[in-house]
Amino acid sequence: MKLNERGLLVVISGPSGVGKGTIRKALFKIPDNNFCYSVSMTTRKPRQGEVDGVDYFFVSREEFEERIKNNGFLEYAEFVGEYYGTPMDYIEKQMDKGKEVIIEIEVQGALQVRERLPEAVFIFIVPPSKKSLLDRLKIRGTEEASKIQERINKAEREFGLAYKYDYIVVNDQVENAADRIYAIIRAEHAKTERSIHKYYKLLEEEND
Amino acid sequence: MKLNERGLLVVISGPSGVGKGTIRKALFKIPDNNFCYSVSMTTRKPRQGEVDGVDYFFVSREEFEERIKNNGFLEYAEFVGEYYGTPMDYIEKQMDKGKEVIIEIEVQGALQVRERLPEAVFIFIVPPSKKSLLDRLKIRGTEEASKIQERINKAEREFGLAYKYDYIVVNDQVENAADRIYAIIRAEHAKTERSIHKYYKLLEEEND
Repeated sequence: MKLNERGLLVVISGPSGVGKGTIRKALFKIPDNNFCYSVSMTTRKPRQGEVDGVDYFFVSREEFEERIKNNGFLEYAEFVGEYYGTPMDYIEKQMDKGKEVIIEIEVQGALQVRERLPEAVFIFIVPPSKKSLLDRLKIRGTEEASKIQERINKAEREFGLAYKYDYIVVNDQVENAADRIYAIIRAEHAKTERSIHKYYKLLEEEND
Repeated sequence: MKLNERGLLVVISGPSGVGKGTIRKALFKIPDNNFCYSVSMTTRKPRQGEVDGVDYFFVSREEFEERIKNNGFLEYAEFVGEYYGTPMDYIEKQMDKGKEVIIEIEVQGALQVRERLPEAVFIFIVPPSKKSLLDRLKIRGTEEASKIQERINKAEREFGLAYKYDYIVVNDQVENAADRIYAIIRAEHAKTERSIHKYYKLLEEEND
């Protein structure tokens, strides 16, 4: 008996610099997983080593704004002068196929998704200590000082938004954090409100 | 950072004959677990191979009723003419030590616990098919025909009570079911409502 067939939308979010991307990559290394990744779209420039269509879809401002007009995003946000968004079409299709769709987004975007798809699973990644995160943001070498300060201010505000999420996962070690997320996904499938209808249907069929 | 220190009370329940005991034993075989088992008390006679203090505390009716008077049970129930109950004292102590206390009880008892300790985690075990369970109840060789029929009727009623639980776990294979329960326990610890207070406390400390 399979109580759940539809996949879940799993939103991995948290303060900038907390290691969301690394955790997501570790998650996909779990054997026999059924995950699929929804690649975000952005107008920011690729960082060294980032690949178009893998890390992000890198598009122009014009292209991005055209898609906003056409209601083509599950969520989008402007952050430090650049757009970031989650294209919608792909996600529903994958969930219907039974895939767990993992999206990794900024806090602002996650809260938009919460409004549109409250049944999604919202996970807030936190650093093992606040200091460790602020240190990390300072040494991230790709931006000017003013942008770094902007990131730190933003992270400070985001620390306070954990209460809006379903789960809080500590990024003490990347593999631990990924394992915890995997446990959350399995548990969510077993939640009574997600599985009860199929269970009762099964009981009825056998009474026929 | 450890967001949770107190252990959980995990209630494993479901229709008679669904395999709760076998799942509980498989759960305790998971390496590095932090579980502790609360042994139930009963007035029924031991079945072959059952050990006092391990499978149950086997006590007299008088002893059991004395403990009821002294409010010494988290829950208790009378079932097919025998008492079954969960002694209370031990449980709180273990949870305070950070242990996950696993109790395995009948549906009637689980619903009593739900009223007293709503923050416990309630898991309803279901068979892979209804027929497989009814067949199992019929071949369980230790009771007379009338007791078997009583069990079947009870199981039929209990099938309908899944909606009162937090999770539904299918006992397709014992190890799978135990793994799912382990995932649920880990996920419950990550739930925002259980961990947010400690998280905010940690942020405050670092601002000092």
